[in-house]
Amino acid sequence: MPDLRIAVIGAGRIGLVHAANIAHRVRGAALVAVTTANPDRAAAVRQIFGPELAIYPNLAGLLAQETLDAVVIASSTAAHRANIEACAAAGLHIFCEKPLALSLPDCDAAILASEQAGIKLMVGHVRRFDPAAIAAKQRIAAGDIGRPIVYRAIAGDQDPPPPSFADPTVSGGLITDAGYHDLYLARWLMEDEIVRVYAEGGALVAPEIGAVGDVDNAIVDFRFARGGLGTLYVSRTTRYGHDVRVEVIGSEGAMHIGQLRRTPVNLLTRGGVSHDVIPDTAARYAEAFVAELQAFVDCVRHDTPPPVSGQDSRTVVAIGLAARKSHQQGEIVYVLQ
Amino acid sequence: MPDLRIAVIGAGRIGLVHAANIAHRVRGAALVAVTTANPDRAAAVRQIFGPELAIYPNLAGLLAQETLDAVVIASSTAAHRANIEACAAAGLHIFCEKPLALSLPDCDAAILASEQAGIKLMVGHVRRFDPAAIAAKQRIAAGDIGRPIVYRAIAGDQDPPPPSFADPTVSGGLITDAGYHDLYLARWLMEDEIVRVYAEGGALVAPEIGAVGDVDNAIVDFRFARGGLGTLYVSRTTRYGHDVRVEVIGSEGAMHIGQLRRTPVNLLTRGGVSHDVIPDTAARYAEAFVAELQAFVDCVRHDTPPPVSGQDSRTVVAIGLAARKSHQQGEIVYVLQ
Amino acid sequence: MPDLRIAVIGAGRIGLVHAANIAHRVRGAALVAVTTANPDRAAAVRQIFGPELAIYPNLAGLLAQETLDAVVIASSTAAHRANIEACAAAGLHIFCEKPLALSLPDCDAAILASEQAGIKLMVGHVRRFDPAAIAAKQRIAAGDIGRPIVYRAIAGDQDPPPPSFADPTVSGGLITDAGYHDLYLARWLMEDEIVRVYAEGGALVAPEIGAVGDVDNAIVDFRFARGGLGTLYVSRTTRYGHDVRVEVIGSEGAMHIGQLRRTPVNLLTRGGVSHDVIPDTAARYAEAFVAELQAFVDCVRHDTPPPVSGQDSRTVVAIGLAARKSHQQGEIVYVLQ
Amino acid sequence: MPDLRIAVIGAGRIGLVHAANIAHRVRGAALVAVTTANPDRAAAVRQIFGPELAIYPNLAGLLAQETLDAVVIASSTAAHRANIEACAAAGLHIFCEKPLALSLPDCDAAILASEQAGIKLMVGHVRRFDPAAIAAKQRIAAGDIGRPIVYRAIAGDQDPPPPSFADPTVSGGLITDAGYHDLYLARWLMEDEIVRVYAEGGALVAPEIGAVGDVDNAIVDFRFARGGLGTLYVSRTTRYGHDVRVEVIGSEGAMHIGQLRRTPVNLLTRGGVSHDVIPDTAARYAEAFVAELQAFVDCVRHDTPPPVSGQDSRTVVAIGLAARKSHQQGEIVYVLQ
Repeated sequence: MPDLRIAVIGAGRIGLVHAANIAHRVRGAALVAVTTANPDRAAAVRQIFGPELAIYPNLAGLLAQETLDAVVIASSTAAHRANIEACAAAGLHIFCEKPLALSLPDCDAAILASEQAGIKLMVGHVRRFDPAAIAAKQRIAAGDIGRPIVYRAIAGDQDPPPPSFADPTVSGGLITDAGYHDLYLARWLMEDEIVRVYAEGGALVAPEIGAVGDVDNAIVDFRFARGGLGTLYVSRTTRYGHDVRVEVIGSEGAMHIGQLRRTPVNLLTRGGVSHDVIPDTAARYAEAFVAELQAFVDCVRHDTPPPVSGQDSRTVVAIGLAARKSHQQGEIVYVLQ
Repeated sequence: MPDLRIAVIGAGRIGLVHAANIAHRVRGAALVAVTTANPDRAAAVRQIFGPELAIYPNLAGLLAQETLDAVVIASSTAAHRANIEACAAAGLHIFCEKPLALSLPDCDAAILASEQAGIKLMVGHVRRFDPAAIAAKQRIAAGDIGRPIVYRAIAGDQDPPPPSFADPTVSGGLITDAGYHDLYLARWLMEDEIVRVYAEGGALVAPEIGAVGDVDNAIVDFRFARGGLGTLYVSRTTRYGHDVRVEVIGSEGAMHIGQLRRTPVNLLTRGGVSHDVIPDTAARYAEAFVAELQAFVDCVRHDTPPPVSGQDSRTVVAIGLAARKSHQQGEIVYVLQ
Repeated sequence: MPDLRIAVIGAGRIGLVHAANIAHRVRGAALVAVTTANPDRAAAVRQIFGPELAIYPNLAGLLAQETLDAVVIASSTAAHRANIEACAAAGLHIFCEKPLALSLPDCDAAILASEQAGIKLMVGHVRRFDPAAIAAKQRIAAGDIGRPIVYRAIAGDQDPPPPSFADPTVSGGLITDAGYHDLYLARWLMEDEIVRVYAEGGALVAPEIGAVGDVDNAIVDFRFARGGLGTLYVSRTTRYGHDVRVEVIGSEGAMHIGQLRRTPVNLLTRGGVSHDVIPDTAARYAEAFVAELQAFVDCVRHDTPPPVSGQDSRTVVAIGLAARKSHQQGEIVYVLQ
Repeated sequence: MPDLRIAVIGAGRIGLVHAANIAHRVRGAALVAVTTANPDRAAAVRQIFGPELAIYPNLAGLLAQETLDAVVIASSTAAHRANIEACAAAGLHIFCEKPLALSLPDCDAAILASEQAGIKLMVGHVRRFDPAAIAAKQRIAAGDIGRPIVYRAIAGDQDPPPPSFADPTVSGGLITDAGYHDLYLARWLMEDEIVRVYAEGGALVAPEIGAVGDVDNAIVDFRFARGGLGTLYVSRTTRYGHDVRVEVIGSEGAMHIGQLRRTPVNLLTRGGVSHDVIPDTAARYAEAFVAELQAFVDCVRHDTPPPVSGQDSRTVVAIGLAARKSHQQGEIVYVLQ
């Protein structure tokens, strides 16, 4: 079977990661084109991938010119729905970065478009493809910790994004944007549904985040259908590095997932022992980013269901919206399904 | 100056720890007597400390017979107020196990009695005497993490206490009893006051805990006066051991305090690498239990203020009561001061 | 510039690693062919790389049929010299697995052939391309540990190779084969030359290793020209996994390099805390294997000296031979240069 | 039974540790007197223990004035034999700091004196009383690592002692003095005898150590009677702290014993993660120093054999002397028994 011909929509940080993985790491896939309206990004793409790679200023131009099998949508979240509708109409399989959309109606429209077109729609729940998460999931499924009862996590980024992105109308805000991953991971590892949430937070470090109407640090608690508890501390300002750790406590034990350390090197001096820290998501989940695209390519090639559906993302978006409402209103909010 | 003559009121687990420390570890103190109404405990005391140590069936008998300088109150919490009033009236300095009492009126009465008698009253906030907490406090005070913004902690015990103790009318319940330490530690490390709380929990593992009206696992979130966030996961069922860890996140870094490992020994086999876990509070805080009593003895001998006051405990009791109410009513509760 | 056309000589475990990296990970390189005389290995190659990849039963056939820029020699060590002479004569650049050869005359002949042909010869000193080693090297060069004075290392493999390979006439034996990496790493990190060695060992676990005249566990001590000390424990029987750790002690501090853990996952149960172990070289040095071939391809494309020369390998072979002699004779042996 | 009346001979660093433990930590023992000829040390003793404690300028004065049950000998090693002979003649039980003596004849004389007097003689092999070593010993005895085959250790001190002590005629030199502990620990954990040694070293950091005829860093290899291997790196200049770690590798697994960290506190900043290091033996083995004296007191009170005999120390001294000779002569040396 020939390689899937894939284009990447959007050439931001994550778009370039996906493009490089398709070009070099994912089996059965070929990178055909990238779209970006930004001349600086276009120049960066040309420098990385050479003159052979086609670059289009927009999706319409791409669809008009190229014969494709699939697209990876890494555009701004606000554009996801329209991108999905256009690509689905063109009969292309779609891998879309998380979140599917910022509102439930947009999620529903995107899902509907993919269903009507009969194409695969997979959303980028990258941490489900992290070997550590997979190992933990297997241990939990094997009963090694008994019945899971509590999901406890931290998700911290070293430095806040620019206010233009932190703006909740653009990214969904801290809880939906940065807290997103733990919400799907919690559902997956606990094998249960989140039914209500409580959240609070503040712009405690970066006033520019507060100025665009968001918080930079938040606590999100959640309750599962079978009674289990969840608690997430999410931060845009863990200055020491990318700090993403999960604990699943069970009736007979617990699993800890996560690492702060990047390199297995310690420096020992009169001042003590020190080591480095993983700087960002790209470094921590380098292998998982390859694995999730491989899973997408494989499900297209073998015509199997994608491991993460549009509905999976819609559910997480619903929880995120409930958490945001909880924070704004200072009360428990039940998740609309 | 001769050694302080000290009696221990109550010969439960923690009473025996204090008695042994006074007898063997604390400088400037002598263990004179122990009270216990339980013949089995009396026999245990005799076996440990030998026939020289006086044992009284109750406090009245002790006060009638012995010349003392101070007492360590390790009786049931419900008896604290009456014990304090009696000992204060006898002019004895008092070290009282936490919490001071289960209600604010009882706290107030105990504090008043000590003030009227002009004796020292110190409450057992043992984790403030942990060398690790002290080292972290110094680092924070030195500005090493910038401005503290979030307190994030876990406090887990291996196995639940008997329902007779777990009963909230006896111990205060999970949040007030086991969550207590993190509340004073949070105030101390953040150098800020807790103004409101949110809590939820459930009897997720031990139905017998639910049967007496308490929960075995809970999340407690709190908000500090200057805007900082706090979140505590407290559990009576961390089966793998005593799991007490604190993270203080600041505007420029973070401190992590805590350890799971008991012995610096790893076993490496085809099955992987494994190590042991600290089993309980007595093992984890062995040095801190000595240091807190030493601090008490020193403040009596040098006539300095005790490092932990009755008011300090009253504040924590108020927060615990608010958290309990939050859990029961499913809403944010402001702390009554 | 078009991709370098590269063939891999030998389709054993390491040959397949190199082939896959050239095919998918190394930039500027294309995998053109593989040679193997073993029908089973040929079938394995076909399954992994598909029918497009040419497979030749021997080097002569490959050289007769294909237009190549370079080869990766991953044949048996005994064949290295002849392979290098043939490929050099054909004007191909050569990346050769370590060690260059088992004897100094063979090393010299291989080096001479490459020099006379004017081609690049690079030897696979893979651990110099490990990000952890590179980070440590930078720290040492920056003076963070003062002057390096001691190199202390362990190099353990989970299970011994088959006796047919363990045979010193095939692999060089434990010290030269498995101890090889630490000898070049020691020279590189200490920035000094090894002038004498002392070694002892035994077939302590695997009698079949003893039966072919080798040891399965050994201690190798070495002395550097400027007086520094080195000590290596090398083992074929660290049952718990791949255990490769290095300590460089300096006059002002130390560096520790290495990790036992594979996945950042801990399981916590009543039995304690446990985690997995890196199983083998391929898993531990996955990124380094890519980086070393990238370095080779880059030095060919940019016509720069290879970062590891034939002479570098010859020096290590000389040390390994001295260590083997030391073990056999029970005395200190000076290294012939 | 009344407390054993014990005097401490010598008020150096380790003498004061023992004195404080007898006074406050060891059950069944009372500190009666200390000897020191140094007025400054006498003043220090008085400050620590108060005016009640008798201080004698020499052993003769002590023996003439006090009624004792036992002594702890913490004088200079050169004085051990004479001290033991005098105390044994006085019928006192003896706990003697390691090493028993610097020569085998002196060891033999000391052992003979104790046997003729019929008193207990125990030598301070403190690391056998470390809870971590005991846990490892139990695991090994239970077969958890199969048959032990290799003992691999590091023993590093932060800063070299003054040349007056480093002088081999005073302390025995680095290998006998600082390497001593690992030699008895190796015999105990491997349950085997050391039959030959190889050592090399240098004054690599501290020229003043070289000036008195000793080395500051050394490698000591040893061979056990059943074929097992041992290797120890011993240093007076691990600037980052007290670094004592042991690995016992077996046919089915391994045990690691040791810790660098003092406090379970991590500081996380933009510069990475850092923690402190154990500074010295007194901090690392605080509990073991109590336990070894408790074992001595218990063996006297219960009339059982001491867990460490004079002969145990003599064996280690013989190995140390062989190692020193090996280093001086550059060859393998068999241990004289």
